[in-house]
Amino acid sequence: MSADPLVALAERLQALCTGRSLTVATAESCTGGLVAHLITEVAGSSGYFIGGIVSYSDDAKRSLLDVPAEVLAAHGAVSAQVAMAMAEGARRRFGAGLAVSVTGVAGPAGGSAEKPVGLTYVAVADGAGVDVRRFHWTGDRGANKRESARTALELLVERASRAAA
Amino acid sequence: MSADPLVALAERLQALCTGRSLTVATAESCTGGLVAHLITEVAGSSGYFIGGIVSYSDDAKRSLLDVPAEVLAAHGAVSAQVAMAMAEGARRRFGAGLAVSVTGVAGPAGGSAEKPVGLTYVAVADGAGVDVRRFHWTGDRGANKRESARTALELLVERASRAAA
Repeated sequence: MSADPLVALAERLQALCTGRSLTVATAESCTGGLVAHLITEVAGSSGYFIGGIVSYSDDAKRSLLDVPAEVLAAHGAVSAQVAMAMAEGARRRFGAGLAVSVTGVAGPAGGSAEKPVGLTYVAVADGAGVDVRRFHWTGDRGANKRESARTALELLVERASRAAA
Repeated sequence: MSADPLVALAERLQALCTGRSLTVATAESCTGGLVAHLITEVAGSSGYFIGGIVSYSDDAKRSLLDVPAEVLAAHGAVSAQVAMAMAEGARRRFGAGLAVSVTGVAGPAGGSAEKPVGLTYVAVADGAGVDVRRFHWTGDRGANKRESARTALELLVERASRAAA
């Protein structure tokens, strides 16, 4: 098992998905590719990981993940609604069984009273639907990215366990 | 400056691109999101980084980066031709000024006599065209990913310096 607890989580995810024909895709905003990087640290990850989209701009969320412009305008990029649309978009675009998305305010800038630095939504979509959760991290930019990535991997593991049950 | 030399490289890239209206996108295969992760470790990266695609499967290279099926069939995913098509595809899909791509055999499996573990192509595309370079890393999976990511950032810095000259 990897010494990095986040890579160890990716190893658990791989063990769950491999052999069950469960494929995974990612849609990342504030984590900026970290979730995909952790997944692909594990040898053999190409057996279940199809790919991911890092949609840092709103344009990329629209054009590559099919997040509706009205949803972005009404709720903002850091919202439960956009997180859900990103996860569903990634699942559809990659033809994956399971997809996770992360959108949040990594900091140090970009926060507001309504959406403070550290506010993060993580969503997981599979054939049964989409779940979304809200978090508020209090670390610096790097720490917030790692907390969000850890949560994304945990939710994938949880959903993959359920799918396998 | 960051203590991680790869994040320090991303800081240099950001300083070069910011204020020159030079935007950047990524297309990653064997680095699996590491280049985008390093770029987004730097506060303010959303000012020039639009996003990236982690195209781990051949299907993703075709459907999300418009790599022609004939090119994949003729040269294989780890080839100069596919690296160039990935960089051009990312530049077009994200509407970025500059795009980098990485495709290689990260290992430990997947190597062959013709395409050994560690063989990696990195391409950079801008409005003037696309450059591609070939490398052969000799580390383990994690080390090969970091070498490839370092090279991708170095080539982006080189091209951004030229564009700014």
